[in-house]
Amino acid sequence: MADIAYINNGFIPMEQASISINDRGYMFADGVYEVICTRNGRPFLLSEHFQRMERSAEGVNIPLPPSYSDWPTIIDEGIKRSGHQETMIYIQLTRGIMPRHHNYPEPLEPQLVMTFRPRPQYDETFFTQGQQAITVEEMRWNRCYLKTIALLPNILMKQKAHRRKCQEAFFISEKQEIHEACAANIFLVKDKIISTPKLNNYILPGISRQYIIDQARETGLTVSCRICLLDELFAADEIFITSTTMDAMPIVKVDDRQIGDGIPGPITRKVRGLFPA
Amino acid sequence: MADIAYINNGFIPMEQASISINDRGYMFADGVYEVICTRNGRPFLLSEHFQRMERSAEGVNIPLPPSYSDWPTIIDEGIKRSGHQETMIYIQLTRGIMPRHHNYPEPLEPQLVMTFRPRPQYDETFFTQGQQAITVEEMRWNRCYLKTIALLPNILMKQKAHRRKCQEAFFISEKQEIHEACAANIFLVKDKIISTPKLNNYILPGISRQYIIDQARETGLTVSCRICLLDELFAADEIFITSTTMDAMPIVKVDDRQIGDGIPGPITRKVRGLFPA
Repeated sequence: MADIAYINNGFIPMEQASISINDRGYMFADGVYEVICTRNGRPFLLSEHFQRMERSAEGVNIPLPPSYSDWPTIIDEGIKRSGHQETMIYIQLTRGIMPRHHNYPEPLEPQLVMTFRPRPQYDETFFTQGQQAITVEEMRWNRCYLKTIALLPNILMKQKAHRRKCQEAFFISEKQEIHEACAANIFLVKDKIISTPKLNNYILPGISRQYIIDQARETGLTVSCRICLLDELFAADEIFITSTTMDAMPIVKVDDRQIGDGIPGPITRKVRGLFPA
Repeated sequence: MADIAYINNGFIPMEQASISINDRGYMFADGVYEVICTRNGRPFLLSEHFQRMERSAEGVNIPLPPSYSDWPTIIDEGIKRSGHQETMIYIQLTRGIMPRHHNYPEPLEPQLVMTFRPRPQYDETFFTQGQQAITVEEMRWNRCYLKTIALLPNILMKQKAHRRKCQEAFFISEKQEIHEACAANIFLVKDKIISTPKLNNYILPGISRQYIIDQARETGLTVSCRICLLDELFAADEIFITSTTMDAMPIVKVDDRQIGDGIPGPITRKVRGLFPA
């Protein structure tokens, strides 16, 4: 088992994987990305992730490279070569390489990097005891619905949460609307009804978010996508956050205030159970 | 003469300069930078650029590396080795290298990259005829006063301007306040009084901006730092934009509307003359 990368049409051990300093991803955050995990050895919801990659790339005017149709094959090969039991596949597409200059010639040749690492395993106590979050003001740009690598605001706020021993920071707008967490979507449960902020410019259309909405409804649960306000967070019976690596993780305290009974609730457990192993 | 880079304690030809894909600058835009130009072979306003680097690094909690005190020596050496008549020095400091994860251990070892390229020469007609700009809505994060590499919004808007044969895009807030251009500060002239937006979260404290404010006042010109509104742009006698590579460049049309007489004005010329060759 080894962490490996795919760059410039070839696989390479992770520790040798490098890119030019003139890659625009490095100097301008000029790129988009996806994170995909395997389940039972197969990439989960792969076409959904690819569709989002297409939307992100189009949103920042990066053309998909000719290799795009080979990506599923490259991914299969990477999974095999890395040999992890379950794999986390990271895909980054940047605009290209050129001497640093804000403007760029069109077209430029996009650069593809993939990495293959073990799918993260969270300690089971994260789910049995629940995690904590803080709220922070929304301070990001207005195109958070695109999955770009301009993640500095996200990592600054996630580190702020981390320092307070919290899993996540929730971005709250001036109007007190709940947006999303730094690397996850947010769901509330009140009186057995599941709610999640409806998509806007400040919310990434999470693949796990949509999967939960669809699957939960399928099993008879009520899910409402609507504007959710900060007050509702504190009044919720349950809160959980969702992402490709976490599935659904319970949040039992926000800003040091207990949510519901202060323990993971039944709907959160049910939602987590919607995912295959 | 050659473009060279300084990475990991050594100089290297630009085309061989590479960094790990796990550099957080590449996957998270987790870094800060400066651009410095030489005049008569010497870095111009070096201590001012260093002071801003210190503020930017502190603003995103990246510690300055032990090598920081050697930077002036490295810069001198790089200028000599590259052998350009005048040099543009680019300095990028990222948080460090680690397997991709939003949170990071503190401390992590910051990574320094410098490049040495020719100082850009603009065609003299840019200054004699003036350039054009467009206005765009402010859509960036709320810490634009830090010089970070999370520049995706800036390059998208600068490219938008470029496609319309304009030099720059001016970010205008919802309240119709003028902020800055994608890679420059903005100045207006009306009735011989120079005005520039006073600093706020959405305006980088430009080194050239401050130099002009100080030098212009020194020569008896009136300079006012205050909130400037969009309407004032179109009513201005002159507009110019400032940056380390451009000094002061006249803007004679904004959103296809002529500014003043539609030609570079006397105050803009005077301000440009405040810079040494």
